[in-house]
Amino acid sequence: MSKLTLNAQHRCFGGSVSYYQHSSSACNAPMRFSVFLPPQANISPVPVLYFLSGLTCSEDNFTVKSGVQREAAELGIAIIAPDTSPRQTGIPEEDTDYDLGSGAGFYVDATQSPWQAHYQMYSYVVEELPQLIETEFPVIAGRRGIFGHSMGGHGALICALRNPHHYLSVSAFAPIAALKQCVWGRKALGHYLGSDQTLWNAYDATELVKQKTWLDKPILIDQGTEDQFLRQQQLLPDRFAEACETVGQSLTLRYQDGYDHSYFFVASFIRDHLQHHAQFLQ
Amino acid sequence: MSKLTLNAQHRCFGGSVSYYQHSSSACNAPMRFSVFLPPQANISPVPVLYFLSGLTCSEDNFTVKSGVQREAAELGIAIIAPDTSPRQTGIPEEDTDYDLGSGAGFYVDATQSPWQAHYQMYSYVVEELPQLIETEFPVIAGRRGIFGHSMGGHGALICALRNPHHYLSVSAFAPIAALKQCVWGRKALGHYLGSDQTLWNAYDATELVKQKTWLDKPILIDQGTEDQFLRQQQLLPDRFAEACETVGQSLTLRYQDGYDHSYFFVASFIRDHLQHHAQFLQ
Repeated sequence: MSKLTLNAQHRCFGGSVSYYQHSSSACNAPMRFSVFLPPQANISPVPVLYFLSGLTCSEDNFTVKSGVQREAAELGIAIIAPDTSPRQTGIPEEDTDYDLGSGAGFYVDATQSPWQAHYQMYSYVVEELPQLIETEFPVIAGRRGIFGHSMGGHGALICALRNPHHYLSVSAFAPIAALKQCVWGRKALGHYLGSDQTLWNAYDATELVKQKTWLDKPILIDQGTEDQFLRQQQLLPDRFAEACETVGQSLTLRYQDGYDHSYFFVASFIRDHLQHHAQFLQ
Repeated sequence: MSKLTLNAQHRCFGGSVSYYQHSSSACNAPMRFSVFLPPQANISPVPVLYFLSGLTCSEDNFTVKSGVQREAAELGIAIIAPDTSPRQTGIPEEDTDYDLGSGAGFYVDATQSPWQAHYQMYSYVVEELPQLIETEFPVIAGRRGIFGHSMGGHGALICALRNPHHYLSVSAFAPIAALKQCVWGRKALGHYLGSDQTLWNAYDATELVKQKTWLDKPILIDQGTEDQFLRQQQLLPDRFAEACETVGQSLTLRYQDGYDHSYFFVASFIRDHLQHHAQFLQ
């Protein structure tokens, strides 16, 4: 484990939650992530499920608030939760806005100055992090699923849709489902990728699903009906559902009555998502 | 609900988590607490389980980190988590130490200046809060259990042992089990109650259990073996177990291998504690 610095470790549901830091080559900066290893990993390698978090979150929010470890321990699945961006990179405007820079990597590879030197979260999540995890932890190489919440739900969808042979399963909680059509996305994509909007399609779940890359497997999305960001048209799950319908993509989009955008919503349905992934990972 | 100010509300596991503030007469100050109402409370009143938190915690830590709502929703039990002290009372040294004043009420009724004007957490937890809860929420009057973590485990034990007809069940995670024998306790009791140590016995679980008030019902305690505060002799569950043994009090004290003092430990065994209480509450 020479590449990794262990910052904290806690026994949890017969397995362990650990917080690591390492030097990321993709981001040219330190990156942090948490790992839950279920008790089964003491006996033989286990599948891995990656969770991508939302705006302003670190690797900690999902790890402490979702209750994911209970179900993951029962099913024998490792959970990896990376931070949502590099931090303290020295980019002056990095901490100016909550929805750009620190905590707001949007899982894209930036091409524009000053971001492109460090904000390479797409490559980090899809390539560097799984390579590291599969080298350093008792997990089954290639047995990967991905899910996430809000900005991280967007991240999970685009990572899976662009890499259907790399991920066996995908789901999302209240994802930003049509990034280039919402205010958050237009701002982030403009800064990270520049003004040529044809380049934005590579990071827009609704555009990507039209390419029919994921057709043989279902997608699960839960969305609270009382989610303030649904009302503000930041999430747009209906646009994604329309695109799925058009191309024949199997989608289970569940509107959960009365739920908001918080981790109380995520925790309430985490079991269903783990069971969704387990069908494909086990 | 005129007495209560609702600060936040989230749908959760088919029920709801709500954060309230009210003017406490016991503490002569505003007090905050969280309430989880399970879905069953929409149909008929439910039993209530009070959770007391540890040093530095507010009503939020347990509510977001323990995963209690999943099991409470299945069993049909309401969960009340009060803050661990009044705050911003104007007492000058209130925020000086992490283990005295704000976040460190130790569930005692202070008799010493300057604390006695506001630090009346024992009366608040045992009398005022249940009266308020049973007036304002759909719960069954008198159908109460109590549990807690660390300082709050101490609180749960002393509240139950002193009021065996008031609580139907009690359990604790890593409790401070012999308050007057540990450094935390000697400091807090000295400041809140003064130097006459005979008065300290009323707030020491190991002393109280010798009075045989709880003999007809078992007590459940979980304690991690890698808990730093166990090593530092702040918790002393062995002293409590000895006293139980001496008087014939039924105690299940489980040393959980490798677990620390964190909420990852609490979350890992929350289901067992809910099931322990459900035997007596349902």
